[in-house]
Amino acid sequence: MKKFKRNERIGAIMKILSDKPNHIFTYNYFTEMFNAAKSTISEDIMIVKKLVEKLEFGEIETIPGAAGGVRYLPKASKLQLKEFLHNTCKKLSSPERLIPGGFIYMTDILYSPEIVTNIGKIFATKFFDKEVDYVVTVETKGIPMALMTAKLLEVPLVIIRRNNRVTEGSTVSINYVTGSTKKIQTMSLSRRAIKEGSKVLLIDDFMKAGGTAKGMNDMMKEFNVDVVGIGIFITTKEPAEKLIDNYIPLLILKGIDEENKKVYIEPNKELF
Amino acid sequence: MKKFKRNERIGAIMKILSDKPNHIFTYNYFTEMFNAAKSTISEDIMIVKKLVEKLEFGEIETIPGAAGGVRYLPKASKLQLKEFLHNTCKKLSSPERLIPGGFIYMTDILYSPEIVTNIGKIFATKFFDKEVDYVVTVETKGIPMALMTAKLLEVPLVIIRRNNRVTEGSTVSINYVTGSTKKIQTMSLSRRAIKEGSKVLLIDDFMKAGGTAKGMNDMMKEFNVDVVGIGIFITTKEPAEKLIDNYIPLLILKGIDEENKKVYIEPNKELF
Repeated sequence: MKKFKRNERIGAIMKILSDKPNHIFTYNYFTEMFNAAKSTISEDIMIVKKLVEKLEFGEIETIPGAAGGVRYLPKASKLQLKEFLHNTCKKLSSPERLIPGGFIYMTDILYSPEIVTNIGKIFATKFFDKEVDYVVTVETKGIPMALMTAKLLEVPLVIIRRNNRVTEGSTVSINYVTGSTKKIQTMSLSRRAIKEGSKVLLIDDFMKAGGTAKGMNDMMKEFNVDVVGIGIFITTKEPAEKLIDNYIPLLILKGIDEENKKVYIEPNKELF
Repeated sequence: MKKFKRNERIGAIMKILSDKPNHIFTYNYFTEMFNAAKSTISEDIMIVKKLVEKLEFGEIETIPGAAGGVRYLPKASKLQLKEFLHNTCKKLSSPERLIPGGFIYMTDILYSPEIVTNIGKIFATKFFDKEVDYVVTVETKGIPMALMTAKLLEVPLVIIRRNNRVTEGSTVSINYVTGSTKKIQTMSLSRRAIKEGSKVLLIDDFMKAGGTAKGMNDMMKEFNVDVVGIGIFITTKEPAEKLIDNYIPLLILKGIDEENKKVYIEPNKELF
């Protein structure tokens, strides 16, 4: 059987915990893996715990008792959050992103693995204690950030489709009205996608009046689940009255001045 | 300035390298972070390198010279690959997944953060040495696995849309014919999504005759880029003659026997 020195065990434990955030590993898992006494593993985990705090990598939580163990919560610190959101606003304000019609080109940001990992970390940090069972989004642009949020919460991702698909079995479809353009749209989701009585977190990339978010919320009622939160990457300041409440936006788009090529966007200061 | 013991440095280096796969960190990055001599960091990295091999976590590569440094390649071992693909086949063969019309319900698998992380690891392992600049997929079901592949290769993800969007600026649209149902479909991608002369890796979740993959390939020609590979999660055995070649499938669907509720699917043995 392979033997491991303390510094090897520390490196390995760090990697294993960090690869599966929010997953509870028992102490036995490590005593067997490293062929070491429980007291030794306990000391190792204390070192990892302090290290994670020292470097602001998040939090290591030890759960006492028979069903106990240890898990890693990759929480974003206030400073990391602030820095990330400010940097993202700076990127989004760049004049060459302006598209005729008063839009901002942002798909490169919404699809950047590094950026969506950070967004996922912020949403996960907000909802670690809500015992989320599923992260739900609607296709397409919010999928990457929703996936990273689901990964960090260690729960499945569910994607609501815009159209009905033959490969999904029996589905639930609803019509909803977009808040700003007042168009009737359809959403559809497989019956087997979500178990009744679950707790779900809704994630979307952009919200104006909130029609799509309200549609997602209505869809969830059809599945008899509890929406424990709604995370939105960017919300517009206007209209101030949205079709839903209890959402958490990361950024607030205050306005676009097409003539002078200026974008007014800022972090949601309530997060700091 | 904070001081770090060896076991703390090992834990931290392991975490930092593993959080940003394929990213080259200079030795200076660590000497500054830990306020330690280069020789000390060198020794630390050798310990991490051996540990990663010992536990089959992939590979740590040290790059010599002035522009040198160290990076982590989370390669899947043959054994991990085999085990993962066999387990996935087992899951997919479950009779309750059969949907009228001869389809298999597999969205829960395609959207599982854990499974798509493993799929991404396999694709990344195959293409680490191809200097990929972008991972490209077409919406919707392949997005999660494409994102994880892009994350592990440390490159941007690009998503081809089925419809034209006003928020993408000027776009390139092409029509293509699906290989099996012979329907004409449209794909569209923003002009700014990919730089000319890049190397791209195409990823999709399912391929029958290869019409969609051929469409993606044709779209890439419009962007004057070099397709260095095509990774497909599941391909059907029939038709044996596909509209594209040089693709790598992970699983091969040999057939579905609806009457007896049997699914015949197996790993692509060429990968072992």
